[in-house]
Amino acid sequence: MNSYITNFIPHDVNPILQKETIKWLKAYHAHDFDELFDRYSVSSEMIHSRVSYASGVNNFTPKSDDLYRIGHAQPYMEHRAGEAQRTIQNIFDELYSDEKDFQIDRLNHISCSHYQSPSAAQIKVASFPKESKTIVNHLYHMGCYAALPALRNSQAMIADGAQRVDNVHTELCSFHLDRDDISPEQIIMRTLFADGAIKYSCVSEDHFKQHKLSGFKLLTLKEEIVPETEKEMTWKLSRFGFAMTLSKKVPLYLAKKIEAFVEELIQGAQLEQVPREELGFAIHPGGPKIVELIQKVLKLSDGQVKHSLDMLYHRGNMSSATLPHIWNTYLKDTKAPRYIVTVAFGPGLTITGGILEKCSA
Amino acid sequence: MNSYITNFIPHDVNPILQKETIKWLKAYHAHDFDELFDRYSVSSEMIHSRVSYASGVNNFTPKSDDLYRIGHAQPYMEHRAGEAQRTIQNIFDELYSDEKDFQIDRLNHISCSHYQSPSAAQIKVASFPKESKTIVNHLYHMGCYAALPALRNSQAMIADGAQRVDNVHTELCSFHLDRDDISPEQIIMRTLFADGAIKYSCVSEDHFKQHKLSGFKLLTLKEEIVPETEKEMTWKLSRFGFAMTLSKKVPLYLAKKIEAFVEELIQGAQLEQVPREELGFAIHPGGPKIVELIQKVLKLSDGQVKHSLDMLYHRGNMSSATLPHIWNTYLKDTKAPRYIVTVAFGPGLTITGGILEKCSA
Repeated sequence: MNSYITNFIPHDVNPILQKETIKWLKAYHAHDFDELFDRYSVSSEMIHSRVSYASGVNNFTPKSDDLYRIGHAQPYMEHRAGEAQRTIQNIFDELYSDEKDFQIDRLNHISCSHYQSPSAAQIKVASFPKESKTIVNHLYHMGCYAALPALRNSQAMIADGAQRVDNVHTELCSFHLDRDDISPEQIIMRTLFADGAIKYSCVSEDHFKQHKLSGFKLLTLKEEIVPETEKEMTWKLSRFGFAMTLSKKVPLYLAKKIEAFVEELIQGAQLEQVPREELGFAIHPGGPKIVELIQKVLKLSDGQVKHSLDMLYHRGNMSSATLPHIWNTYLKDTKAPRYIVTVAFGPGLTITGGILEKCSA
Repeated sequence: MNSYITNFIPHDVNPILQKETIKWLKAYHAHDFDELFDRYSVSSEMIHSRVSYASGVNNFTPKSDDLYRIGHAQPYMEHRAGEAQRTIQNIFDELYSDEKDFQIDRLNHISCSHYQSPSAAQIKVASFPKESKTIVNHLYHMGCYAALPALRNSQAMIADGAQRVDNVHTELCSFHLDRDDISPEQIIMRTLFADGAIKYSCVSEDHFKQHKLSGFKLLTLKEEIVPETEKEMTWKLSRFGFAMTLSKKVPLYLAKKIEAFVEELIQGAQLEQVPREELGFAIHPGGPKIVELIQKVLKLSDGQVKHSLDMLYHRGNMSSATLPHIWNTYLKDTKAPRYIVTVAFGPGLTITGGILEKCSA
């Protein structure tokens, strides 16, 4: 039972320039820490622009309801959660504004940055016509790599008879950043993570052919947890929202594992005969150094990692929404390779990946 | 592709007597609100005992690290989350202490009351021997009804080739209760919700027969979101943790829908010929009144709702862990009916259900 991935609809809003963000962060701290921001911010050569749905970002005259300011006063946790929920409901409304037939068997909402019940996905489905039989599923708190578990779950739903499974990623990383923390780690996070949302469908082979769609055939998936790494990357509740920790050893673990992992993916997809230089790569750009490291270990050309670095440049790290954006770029690039090797990393440490094949019905 | 549900292992710890809890709540409030507690507490005739994993409950001499006290001081959110995580890791260690073969294809962690990455499920899998190929999936924030989405996801994974899918529910409701709130709604919540955890496996027909197991065959599943009910039941982030709201209209919506819903379940399982009085019912006991209402609408005998009310009596409402506990009771009851109709409700409003058939390989 083959699964296909198609109909990508990114949620597009105006991004904020990275250099303006850094300028604003410096001014917010009354220029007391300019040197720290110069040293630790992700540079605007690596990230040119990012999206934030949170009010108050790059706002030099914060209002009384500014999300970052009041985020520190915990009695207003309800306010922050309310803003996040309204934002996500708007995103769903916009992503589904053109939906005409409502023949969606499953709707998976994927996020690691805001949880509320009923979810925006449930609220959206409740607004569908009566004939719709869409069932909502939450795939929450899987981290940056969640697009691959989403594909695995979608594939299982299709094996179980679903014709169309929609996946909607909404990541509101900016709602969880602590503006007053000027530790190097937090300066990196604040200038690396971005908000983002995207919708796409996983469909059965019948549905793909019948509707004459273009997209990807899902050839293989693979996932493993690296033993004894449970302290290397975490995503925990803190007084400011969710907070991330990332140890410096993460790149070492990944470097050690990634070559064998990708070879096994290639075997899983029975693509041993394809010259390695003809493969495209969708690497989750956790940060510029991760992509650089994987390029080096796997001896990839600049062209093979271009789409990952371009996405980082234009939108930053949008957590689980990043990979689907990169897949969409590969689809729109008519000169792109036929096979796309995808890899991502997250708490566990989990290494996960898959191979997609570009195709049209 | 049939799925079977088997090998239930409830996590058992000593419960707290309901009458002691109410006594303690009254004393905590210096007996200023005894009348309110007498009026709104769920009586010890309905709930005899409940489990709490949180320190400080029924402790008349709170220590400085008492979870409820410090829960109010938000700088200690990290402490509360840390306690929750340690508790869940212990539960996983105990539930998997007898695991011998580690041939678990998927491990689903189901919860709506604590999220952290890596999760206790990921940490457990990282400790498995290298040969284990278990893939972890989080099913978070689905509410009280989550056992049915868990069965649906497990069934899909089995259709996609998995032989054994483990589902582990951990619910730490007591970590989210606000001890100082004496509104009627919160008094009900505080004396209704309980902590609970349970593990069970969903397996393929081959696995079930090969291992000569006893359990349930999953005959059918069904789920729908009732339009225009999105404000009737919510589970949102607040300064004290997650907070629930429940409108008085919920029973009316359920009463209106439940009869047709159960008839469609019965048709889905092709059990129209079975006399209705021979069916067992596993109704999620959201509260005593929900079970009473469904008994009345569906004209069920006391025997048909006994297992739901017994679970409420012995353990309270353990959120998503409740239904699997009830299924386990049906399995152990040699006089129980062959077919078990399961129904549960949650934010959406979502009505969900399934029919299980008792069987042995």
